[in-house]
Amino acid sequence: MHHIANPDFAQNVLDSFKRQNAMELIRASMPVVEHGKTEIHVPHWTGVEQQHGFVHGGVVGMVADSSAGYAAMTMIPANASVLSVEYKLNFLAPAVGEKLIARGQVVRAGKTLIVSRSKVYSVSGDQEKLCALMQQTLMVVYDQAEK
Amino acid sequence: MHHIANPDFAQNVLDSFKRQNAMELIRASMPVVEHGKTEIHVPHWTGVEQQHGFVHGGVVGMVADSSAGYAAMTMIPANASVLSVEYKLNFLAPAVGEKLIARGQVVRAGKTLIVSRSKVYSVSGDQEKLCALMQQTLMVVYDQAEK
Amino acid sequence: MHHIANPDFAQNVLDSFKRQNAMELIRASMPVVEHGKTEIHVPHWTGVEQQHGFVHGGVVGMVADSSAGYAAMTMIPANASVLSVEYKLNFLAPAVGEKLIARGQVVRAGKTLIVSRSKVYSVSGDQEKLCALMQQTLMVVYDQAEK
Amino acid sequence: MHHIANPDFAQNVLDSFKRQNAMELIRASMPVVEHGKTEIHVPHWTGVEQQHGFVHGGVVGMVADSSAGYAAMTMIPANASVLSVEYKLNFLAPAVGEKLIARGQVVRAGKTLIVSRSKVYSVSGDQEKLCALMQQTLMVVYDQAEK
Repeated sequence: MHHIANPDFAQNVLDSFKRQNAMELIRASMPVVEHGKTEIHVPHWTGVEQQHGFVHGGVVGMVADSSAGYAAMTMIPANASVLSVEYKLNFLAPAVGEKLIARGQVVRAGKTLIVSRSKVYSVSGDQEKLCALMQQTLMVVYDQAEK
Repeated sequence: MHHIANPDFAQNVLDSFKRQNAMELIRASMPVVEHGKTEIHVPHWTGVEQQHGFVHGGVVGMVADSSAGYAAMTMIPANASVLSVEYKLNFLAPAVGEKLIARGQVVRAGKTLIVSRSKVYSVSGDQEKLCALMQQTLMVVYDQAEK
Repeated sequence: MHHIANPDFAQNVLDSFKRQNAMELIRASMPVVEHGKTEIHVPHWTGVEQQHGFVHGGVVGMVADSSAGYAAMTMIPANASVLSVEYKLNFLAPAVGEKLIARGQVVRAGKTLIVSRSKVYSVSGDQEKLCALMQQTLMVVYDQAEK
Repeated sequence: MHHIANPDFAQNVLDSFKRQNAMELIRASMPVVEHGKTEIHVPHWTGVEQQHGFVHGGVVGMVADSSAGYAAMTMIPANASVLSVEYKLNFLAPAVGEKLIARGQVVRAGKTLIVSRSKVYSVSGDQEKLCALMQQTLMVVYDQAEK
């Protein structure tokens, strides 16, 4: 659907992800980076739990936000960067299971604004259950690429 | 405006907060719990940063979500608990400075649904700057109080 | 995916829609009612325009809201009704063309809460363009069915 | 707080409002235009009702959206215009009473993005009740001022 604005998008996204200490703090990884989409995985470990032993909603929000934001970043030119303007997140089910998978995807990429989405699944064995749904707006900023 | 449904609300909120490992992970504290509002503070330390050295947007979302959710919890009966249904968060400025303060407040408390808000400020010296604004919906669940 | 809670859902939805004067005011119709989804159409006429001659964003919001809300109503028991709790709407492109089609769909139907979505398309000849994307939360209320 | 970027803002906003046929269709008026805020009023008449005789949620959304959007327009330069990027609306109470008042207000005005809010009240006699709460993002577009 969209042409590739930056052939090095995957490397740039992975480099940026690695520089996010907060992602390391929650033990998140990004095994999938494609044009217009990404996946972030977080194991369910005690450090990310809330009071019932589920993964904390804030952590669900973190990976939803980041997966959709990095999906947007795959579609911008080399001299641009993206800023998260806002997002809206619905919690659909408790984040139980062994890990979370957040799948971010671009819905519409404009020159200045990108709208993206993320679906967060909780994984138990070979079963995935949708536990959160996010809709996000990002702004593309030119000539201020990430340092 | 609202009567106090549970005289022990402050203790219950603090107890619940202490059981949230994810809040400990980011080094968050809750120095203010009043009827209809709370404050969560997070120091700016390297573990919660994103790639530019600001506090990660996901961490901003975590404390916005939790401050507004716990504000809702201050207003429910002893036999009830709250679930975060959804929220919407606007990022207004980068989360710079030495710490974040998230101030959650209830807008309207119904029997089944509570609408609350949070303003997140970045603090540099004695200056506060509004860096995020959240609007949230919570559901009150009866007879399933936190274990 | 979901069992049919009320075999008369289509008739109930259409009856309710006909009682909404505001839908008649903007000349909206509902040609599609299926289990878990609906379609609302609005012709582009002068009365629904904004200052540039596009369909007013508020009208886009009206049909997004209603199409997703009625999609939720197709899935509830006969003794229940739905209330729109909140929604979030992104505008993706100006609402040009000859008519709008709003396609509402349920994402997850719980006993108390339903999350649904709507995509609004502007139609020019045989071309459809996505012009708005909505995510919505509804509450199911029992034993207060529409009068 | 903010300097006045366009001394003719009130006239420009009122002129734009008058060109919105959809506002005339629902019989809305705009009796208040100040720097950073506006008010839109809608009488409760049969044409804007939903099936229970309340004002339709879509009409509530229309005036919330427009009041916050025009509040943003009061703060932009003469050579600029605003586009509604997205909004999120919570319904807090049914829109009963004789009329609606939507009060839009700017939260933060940036060069490219403006975040605003609207509170919609239903008015019965001399009593106002908050019935909806909105948070909105707008984009400022330069050198494409309204025709």
